[in-house]
Amino acid sequence: MHATILHKPGDIRFEDCPDPKILAATDAIVRLSATCVCGSDLWPYRGIQEIKQPTPMGHEYCGIVEEVGKGVTSIRPGQFVIGSFFASDNTCPHCKAGYQSSCRHRELVGGAQAPRLRVPLADGTLVATPEIPPDELVPSLLASSDVFGTGWFAADAAKVKPGATVAVVGDGAVGLLAVLSAKQMGAERIIAMSRHVARQKLARSYGATDIVEERGVDGIARIQDLTKGLGADAVLECVGTQESMAQAIGATRPGGFVSYVGVPHGVSLDAQNLFFRHVHLHGGPAPVRRYLPTLIDLVWSRKVDPGKVFDLTLPLEQVAEGYRAMDERRAIKALLRP
Amino acid sequence: MHATILHKPGDIRFEDCPDPKILAATDAIVRLSATCVCGSDLWPYRGIQEIKQPTPMGHEYCGIVEEVGKGVTSIRPGQFVIGSFFASDNTCPHCKAGYQSSCRHRELVGGAQAPRLRVPLADGTLVATPEIPPDELVPSLLASSDVFGTGWFAADAAKVKPGATVAVVGDGAVGLLAVLSAKQMGAERIIAMSRHVARQKLARSYGATDIVEERGVDGIARIQDLTKGLGADAVLECVGTQESMAQAIGATRPGGFVSYVGVPHGVSLDAQNLFFRHVHLHGGPAPVRRYLPTLIDLVWSRKVDPGKVFDLTLPLEQVAEGYRAMDERRAIKALLRP
Repeated sequence: MHATILHKPGDIRFEDCPDPKILAATDAIVRLSATCVCGSDLWPYRGIQEIKQPTPMGHEYCGIVEEVGKGVTSIRPGQFVIGSFFASDNTCPHCKAGYQSSCRHRELVGGAQAPRLRVPLADGTLVATPEIPPDELVPSLLASSDVFGTGWFAADAAKVKPGATVAVVGDGAVGLLAVLSAKQMGAERIIAMSRHVARQKLARSYGATDIVEERGVDGIARIQDLTKGLGADAVLECVGTQESMAQAIGATRPGGFVSYVGVPHGVSLDAQNLFFRHVHLHGGPAPVRRYLPTLIDLVWSRKVDPGKVFDLTLPLEQVAEGYRAMDERRAIKALLRP
Repeated sequence: MHATILHKPGDIRFEDCPDPKILAATDAIVRLSATCVCGSDLWPYRGIQEIKQPTPMGHEYCGIVEEVGKGVTSIRPGQFVIGSFFASDNTCPHCKAGYQSSCRHRELVGGAQAPRLRVPLADGTLVATPEIPPDELVPSLLASSDVFGTGWFAADAAKVKPGATVAVVGDGAVGLLAVLSAKQMGAERIIAMSRHVARQKLARSYGATDIVEERGVDGIARIQDLTKGLGADAVLECVGTQESMAQAIGATRPGGFVSYVGVPHGVSLDAQNLFFRHVHLHGGPAPVRRYLPTLIDLVWSRKVDPGKVFDLTLPLEQVAEGYRAMDERRAIKALLRP
């Protein structure tokens, strides 16, 4: 088959690769109905995160199970399934505590920008939909594989409660779906920080009540202003830079909650500032597996439409254009059809 | 009167000072039954925290109200009261959320190592005991003014639950009372990190089930070992250094809680490490006022004896010896009798 390989920064190729095979008895092979490009794929694409060798890309996936290993008991060929970027056994103490992305046997899933994918620990990792979904649900189910689950974790980790005032830093797919998630959890006021008109519009359609275009100290001042000097109850940091973290911490009320769900790149936190800001801080790789049954339910019953973050759909072989469009912020998120 | 002034590092003097007076209508003047030296007083005493001018010292206090301003309505002369290091109005939104130490009108209380003290915002800050306490309860009531309240916040901020495995970093008065607090909240296993025999003994009397003498990477390994490689559910960091924070973060299970209650000095946190450790982080200046009614109840009913952390009692005029004894770790905490 052909699959997506990043050779060096900016050099994405769709090229011949070996077909995936069952390697362990707990593996499954999934034929992908759709896959996509992640904001986090742009870190190595832009050369900010080093890659040491040509690397198969992609970690968001859904599709039909083709084959399972001998040890797989709950997942079977023919099912439509969704998994996430960390394979997990879903039985270890960390999984039982709801932190499947810190599973003691976790494995990074890679190479999903391809027609077929090997998923380790299939029983623990994959969740099947009630039946084969109609085509129009596929984008939202694919979003549940990562960006919706990550936005949901952002809201959950920041303890968003009914009536809360929430601010979201970052207007990428995760930030937009953090808005949607906060809305689902009952937030009354949702402040989206964005300078991009199309993204502001989508944020509003997902439940944002206010838009803040300012950044840094001005952005903090604007949120303090909007909250009568108190700060937001919860700030969901969906970027992962020094500036975005500082903005989140500065915009939260004492006793409030900051969540951070994008891998921090070169971010250092001054503990004394955190101390006197009095905030709660929680984040990490989103335990998407914990939320998948809930997210699938919401999508299946058409209560939410997280698939709207895909504003570009391309045939898989045009994956390089998907990267370019996202890198240049021409697209929020590119869906790829094998 | 005579009061305690720090002139420069190591130079503590008990010298003539003006008597405190009512300055605002919301003030009270308290005649102190007891006061003490705080671990945090050692930062400027040791020259780690700069002092720019001769500074009145002390922020832990309990005693009899002598006089109140015209605007004070709930506190009256003759009552025995306890307050904490931040005066707070106890009515602003931050106070109502339980973060009185971030009160919008907070004022640092200083100069409590003296016979008499002016306390601002008396109605919001001071809590009266049911009646004048017998003398043997005074040390425990004084401990509630800061170190017990701070240890309690450490356990509460780390969400200590019945059955939990808890580790406490730091064997000062706050760490020891964090052990006591975790025990009160139902922790099943409490690991105290200490190399000091007398403190280990007091930790055990307060509920510690295990003692770990190792520090740094070895200390983390020992806790991982004691918890079968999972890490502790909650780690209570009661020191405030880079090493103690690293130890706390490294010893916590994914999804677990790290609290930190000592002002961090020169501590920088790598956000990517925090991210992949998957911990919750919460701390700050303890909102002792939130807990005072509970703590007074516990002391009054003799369920707890936090006053045992005072292993040295001196007449107030010997305050300099109290600083020396704590600096040299000859004493855990020095109580001073005016």
